[in-house]
Amino acid sequence: MTEQTKRTTIVLFSGDYDKAMAAYIIANGAAAYDHEVTIFHTFWGFNALRKEELIPVKKGFLEKMFGKMMPRGADKMGLSKMNFAGMGPKMIKNVMKKHNVLTLPQLIEMAQEQGVKLVACTMTMDLLGLQEKELLDDIDYAGVAAYLADAEEGSVNLFI
Amino acid sequence: MTEQTKRTTIVLFSGDYDKAMAAYIIANGAAAYDHEVTIFHTFWGFNALRKEELIPVKKGFLEKMFGKMMPRGADKMGLSKMNFAGMGPKMIKNVMKKHNVLTLPQLIEMAQEQGVKLVACTMTMDLLGLQEKELLDDIDYAGVAAYLADAEEGSVNLFI
Amino acid sequence: MTEQTKRTTIVLFSGDYDKAMAAYIIANGAAAYDHEVTIFHTFWGFNALRKEELIPVKKGFLEKMFGKMMPRGADKMGLSKMNFAGMGPKMIKNVMKKHNVLTLPQLIEMAQEQGVKLVACTMTMDLLGLQEKELLDDIDYAGVAAYLADAEEGSVNLFI
Repeated sequence: MTEQTKRTTIVLFSGDYDKAMAAYIIANGAAAYDHEVTIFHTFWGFNALRKEELIPVKKGFLEKMFGKMMPRGADKMGLSKMNFAGMGPKMIKNVMKKHNVLTLPQLIEMAQEQGVKLVACTMTMDLLGLQEKELLDDIDYAGVAAYLADAEEGSVNLFI
Repeated sequence: MTEQTKRTTIVLFSGDYDKAMAAYIIANGAAAYDHEVTIFHTFWGFNALRKEELIPVKKGFLEKMFGKMMPRGADKMGLSKMNFAGMGPKMIKNVMKKHNVLTLPQLIEMAQEQGVKLVACTMTMDLLGLQEKELLDDIDYAGVAAYLADAEEGSVNLFI
Repeated sequence: MTEQTKRTTIVLFSGDYDKAMAAYIIANGAAAYDHEVTIFHTFWGFNALRKEELIPVKKGFLEKMFGKMMPRGADKMGLSKMNFAGMGPKMIKNVMKKHNVLTLPQLIEMAQEQGVKLVACTMTMDLLGLQEKELLDDIDYAGVAAYLADAEEGSVNLFI
């Protein structure tokens, strides 16, 4: 690590709306302060990368079931606390609107505009049967080796 | 980052008693080993900063509901696992007493005595409608930029 | 921190199968890229270190209850999401088998073979009444001071 490099690398494991929001708020903040920023999406963190529309793809039975049970896209994710069968996210989104806080889909768009590198973990894609055309455009595909190469270069490393 | 600086910066996102305990144990340990330590409380992590008594404040309807649903103070928080409608925390507190392990409120007090910087995330306060007089005394108020300024100076960065 | 040292230090707090898998996949990856790697198991993270067989040990009542409620060994752990009373882990394990992904017990064995330092948090052992003979062989026993000594030497520090 050189003194000049500022780098923030986040593993987004969680599929919760609030945790993904925290990840993307930190990522956008770090990008604004000239960090090179990577968000490595793994396991349930893929929820944030899924397209909202249903993309018809061929899958095995178990992969199809995972695909059905996981929310399609950032806007449909639940809260880690006080989810109340989906009422929690609605309440949070109402107060967010009132206080002009960006929603998760807006935070993701901003991150892409700011050049935050969004990475999809290829092992998870295999495991859950997710395919590239089901995910957002302009993202990278990589494994744990690529994650470590980014992470070891910087000091702000978070697992969310 | 200079070789001399030892710094531990923790984002406390979780509102669970056991996770907050882990955060404060690491923070107190790091402070004892001369790290500069910051705990940045965000989202449900505010539970640890709330005063136990009910502070009357003016709020909108949604903010009032969040205030009611979130536990008031460290002693009322639940466990991330085996909470059993509040029986889990009682069991844990009993074994903690037996083994002379500090409780969460004691760990927070010790952190303040050791000079650990406790920060309340101002965006979360807006969002959940929390006000300064509902929170512990002698804490700082800041946003993601201040968090990053601390985090990028050190190597022990955790999201809990 | 010297430029030469590459070190990954993970606090495994979670007792979930999927989160422990993520921890051990990162640890094995880092070890393969010549990092010195430590996984510090604390709180529910002990699930991954427990032997599968029932080891008869003398314990107090509360410690016995914790011992009963916590799963014995990596293979019995649940998922953080979509656990469905144990059906989720079975589904995940089926797709893992299909895609030749290593199971958690296999990942732990590989980590030990690669020289990843597995540490059991002594405070948690006291608290939950766990004893050395209930845990895997060839692991270390240490407290938060030893964790910090490892963590402050490296830049990839994760709390999982």
